[in-house]
Amino acid sequence: MAERGLRRRLSVDERRAELLRIGMRLFSTRAYEEIWVEEIAELAGISRGLLYHYFPTKRDFYVAVSREAAAEAGALTAPDPSLPPSERLHAGIDAFVRYAEEHSQGFLTAYRGSLAGDPEVRAIVEEGRQRQAARILELVAPDDEPPPLLCIAVYGWIALAQSIIARWLQKREATREAVCELLSGALSGVIAAAMEADERTRSLVGN
Amino acid sequence: MAERGLRRRLSVDERRAELLRIGMRLFSTRAYEEIWVEEIAELAGISRGLLYHYFPTKRDFYVAVSREAAAEAGALTAPDPSLPPSERLHAGIDAFVRYAEEHSQGFLTAYRGSLAGDPEVRAIVEEGRQRQAARILELVAPDDEPPPLLCIAVYGWIALAQSIIARWLQKREATREAVCELLSGALSGVIAAAMEADERTRSLVGN
Repeated sequence: MAERGLRRRLSVDERRAELLRIGMRLFSTRAYEEIWVEEIAELAGISRGLLYHYFPTKRDFYVAVSREAAAEAGALTAPDPSLPPSERLHAGIDAFVRYAEEHSQGFLTAYRGSLAGDPEVRAIVEEGRQRQAARILELVAPDDEPPPLLCIAVYGWIALAQSIIARWLQKREATREAVCELLSGALSGVIAAAMEADERTRSLVGN
Repeated sequence: MAERGLRRRLSVDERRAELLRIGMRLFSTRAYEEIWVEEIAELAGISRGLLYHYFPTKRDFYVAVSREAAAEAGALTAPDPSLPPSERLHAGIDAFVRYAEEHSQGFLTAYRGSLAGDPEVRAIVEEGRQRQAARILELVAPDDEPPPLLCIAVYGWIALAQSIIARWLQKREATREAVCELLSGALSGVIAAAMEADERTRSLVGN
C-alpha cells in the first residue's frame, strides 16, 4: 500500500524485479481472474503502457511470477546438509507445505486454476517436480543409479503430494502437522513398495 | 474401415452411439491434434453438416467421447465381489492399468494433452477420481466413516497412480506387472501412513 502511486526512477531490472514482487504478493492470495492489469500498474506506480512494455499480457506477467515463485520455493525447500538424510526429507516436506500454505492461492492457481493447462505453466510445474524428484533420489540412493521403479515411484509421490496439498488448502480437513506426517509416511511407503516391486520383478526374470 | 462411406439409416441415438464408438477408437490411439472432423464424418459415412448437428465442435465431440471412455473404464474396473477385499484392489488396479494401456493415447490426452486443462475434461477426470476413491475407501473401511486423513491419502494415491501410469505409457521403463505391483504396494504404504499419522495426531490432542 505504501508504494501506491509513488513514481520512482528504477532501472529496467529493478522495475522488473519490483513488478515480480508485487505479482508474487497478489497471485499468492487472490485468484488469477480477480487481478486486473490496472491494479498491478497502480501498485507499481507506473502507467499501464509501461507495464505492457515489461509484460505484454496478464498471462505473460503470471508466467513470469510463477517462474519466480517456483525458484523461491525451490530455494526455500533445498535440503539442509547439516541434518541427517531422514530428517532432511521431513524438513523439506515441512518447508514445502509451509510455503504452499503461505502462498495458497498461488499454489492452487498453478495446480488447479484456469491456467493450470497453459503449456508454459505446466513446464514450470514439471520442472519443479523434476527438481524435487532429483533431490529425493539423491537422498534415498546417493551412490547408485536408482532403479527405474524407484524413479517412477518418487515421481508419483510428488503428484500425490501436490494433489494432497491442493486438496488440503481448499478443505483444511487436517492440521498442517498431520499432512506433513502423512506425506513423510507415504514417501517411505512408496519407496518401500518400489524396492519390493523391483526385487520381485528381478527375481521373476532370473537375476 | 469397412464402414467408410457406407451411408446407413440410423436413429438419432444409434447414430450418436456409433459416432462415440468411432471417437473412442480414434482418440485411444491418436493425439487430439491429429484427428480431423472430416475423418470422423467419413468413417461414420455422414456429411460434416450432419456431424456438426450431433457435435458442434471437435472439442464437444472429444468431451462426449471422454465421458463415454470414463464410464467404460469405471465399469471395467468395478470391484469383483467374488474376490476377497485385498485381491479386489489388486484386480481393480490391474484392470485399470490394462485399460490405460489399451487406450494409451486417450489416457494421455485426458491427463497430459492440450485439453487436460479444459474445465469439462477436468470435471470428467475428477469424477473418475472420486469414484475410484469411494471404491477404495469402501474396501478399506467398509463399516466406518473413514478418518479425514485416510480420505486425503486415498485421493492422493489416485493422483500418484494417474501420474505413474501416464509416465509409464510415455517411457515404458518397466513391465506392466511391475507397475501394478508398485501401485498396489504404494496404496498399502499410503494407507498405513494415513492410519499412523491419524493415530499420532489424535494422541497429540489427547484423545
